[in-house]
Amino acid sequence: MKRALPIAILASLVPAIAAAAPFRTPEAILKEAPASDWQALDPADTLYMDLPSGRVVILLAPGFAPKTIANIKALAREKYFDDASLLRSQDNYVVQWSQEDKTRKAAKATLKGFVEFDRPASSSLVRLPDHDTYAPQTGFDGDFPAGSDGKREWLLHCYGMVGAGRDNAADSGSGVELYAVTGQSPRQLDRNITLVGRVVQGMDLLSALPRGPAPMGFYAKPDQYTPIRSIRLASEVPAQDRLALQYLKTNTKSFTAYVEARRNRHNDWFVRPAGAIDACNIPLPVRTAP
Amino acid sequence: MKRALPIAILASLVPAIAAAAPFRTPEAILKEAPASDWQALDPADTLYMDLPSGRVVILLAPGFAPKTIANIKALAREKYFDDASLLRSQDNYVVQWSQEDKTRKAAKATLKGFVEFDRPASSSLVRLPDHDTYAPQTGFDGDFPAGSDGKREWLLHCYGMVGAGRDNAADSGSGVELYAVTGQSPRQLDRNITLVGRVVQGMDLLSALPRGPAPMGFYAKPDQYTPIRSIRLASEVPAQDRLALQYLKTNTKSFTAYVEARRNRHNDWFVRPAGAIDACNIPLPVRTAP
Repeated sequence: MKRALPIAILASLVPAIAAAAPFRTPEAILKEAPASDWQALDPADTLYMDLPSGRVVILLAPGFAPKTIANIKALAREKYFDDASLLRSQDNYVVQWSQEDKTRKAAKATLKGFVEFDRPASSSLVRLPDHDTYAPQTGFDGDFPAGSDGKREWLLHCYGMVGAGRDNAADSGSGVELYAVTGQSPRQLDRNITLVGRVVQGMDLLSALPRGPAPMGFYAKPDQYTPIRSIRLASEVPAQDRLALQYLKTNTKSFTAYVEARRNRHNDWFVRPAGAIDACNIPLPVRTAP
Repeated sequence: MKRALPIAILASLVPAIAAAAPFRTPEAILKEAPASDWQALDPADTLYMDLPSGRVVILLAPGFAPKTIANIKALAREKYFDDASLLRSQDNYVVQWSQEDKTRKAAKATLKGFVEFDRPASSSLVRLPDHDTYAPQTGFDGDFPAGSDGKREWLLHCYGMVGAGRDNAADSGSGVELYAVTGQSPRQLDRNITLVGRVVQGMDLLSALPRGPAPMGFYAKPDQYTPIRSIRLASEVPAQDRLALQYLKTNTKSFTAYVEARRNRHNDWFVRPAGAIDACNIPLPVRTAP
């Protein structure tokens, strides 16, 4: 058996096109994107969740969930999440965290919850060309995957998206309990719960956590929790301690080319380009500023 | 904030419908399914991959990939995978394993690879009602998610599916290198590589592995590999050591009801049932025989 590459299926991700080829790989497109196509993360809308294993960076979506995010920012400023806990990891679904120190739980009782499941449709939606199973139209609005029916627009429960857990009352999600999607996109949750942002770095620190043995992935005992050292707004961290991350703006030719290169992959490995792509299969390109 | 349930979003999975309600939860449907709707796993088509952390059970799909699976069964009988290694875990993509002991790698040179990416369309496809982004029609064929264009039928790269890695040559996937999908379904791989089965138990033992630090999720050093004690056909294991697993047959009223209950969830938590479902969001119900 010819062994063109060290390990078999990795070939799908390796640029293997000669310079003269008409197609560019997603990686080449990102490399060639002009600096103006990249957007620095706004530190006022960026959370650093520091775990013993490293930093998880969450980009907030105040355009979609301004009230819930105001709560979350207030909690971060008050250091409410210091020594909070990752207390749930359900396979192929979500991880979830909250403050389990009862002396701090007063915030739960005082913080109002909101229903920010969708918003009026926006002309800023960068539309994807393919049919989606769940939404009449999908695309990207700013740096977030979104769906639209022409009247309303909402964020999609894609891998890495972060939301505010709630109880049965629709307006019970205040931001004191948060979750991140770690499995196949649970799109049935769209428009049922408030999404507040997305993980843009450090997702593996959440997704590889041991699954909880109790029902729904809860850990059985507090000593199984993963501690959260702190959650801080990047703008509240000294400038020299911030990460210089940028994401590819989605309303650029570079992003359009990137999507097309993922819709139809042309390299030495693929025999049949898919010809379509699901919004949740388009990870937002993120890099450290060069 | 009313706290109807211990943790917010878990409500989405908890049966909360009064006995008189017209809707049944997915869980209730499974509980009420007649014994005849459940199918015992055929030990001749079941692999046990035993890790230090426990057993991963893989159900093979010989109806789709008979030649590749014949190779894999031969390798299992020869104990080729004893002391093999999980050597790759790429976040939101796949884990991959193979035999890295060079004294055993002779099998690589002698085993023929095959192209079993699709097969003629079958009347046995249990069709799903919703539009799929990638395939003209999706559904289940036996216990596997499948797509069809009316002429050809193929397995879908859903979470937990297992395939035979290959190099650039389409016919280079012999079964000596295998992978399992651990992230958002990489449907762009459909019809580009041979899928051989699915994990039906123990998926969390693969999905929660630490992500590899090298490019594409490879571990940087062999001492980071997770060892595989053995991979055996269940039929080659003493009967008393086999697991009595059953899956819900997909051509039953119970399965149809289960899908519908997941398409439109009605309980005290959901405010807007999705009205649709993606094939990869329908995990195959598996249980231990009662």
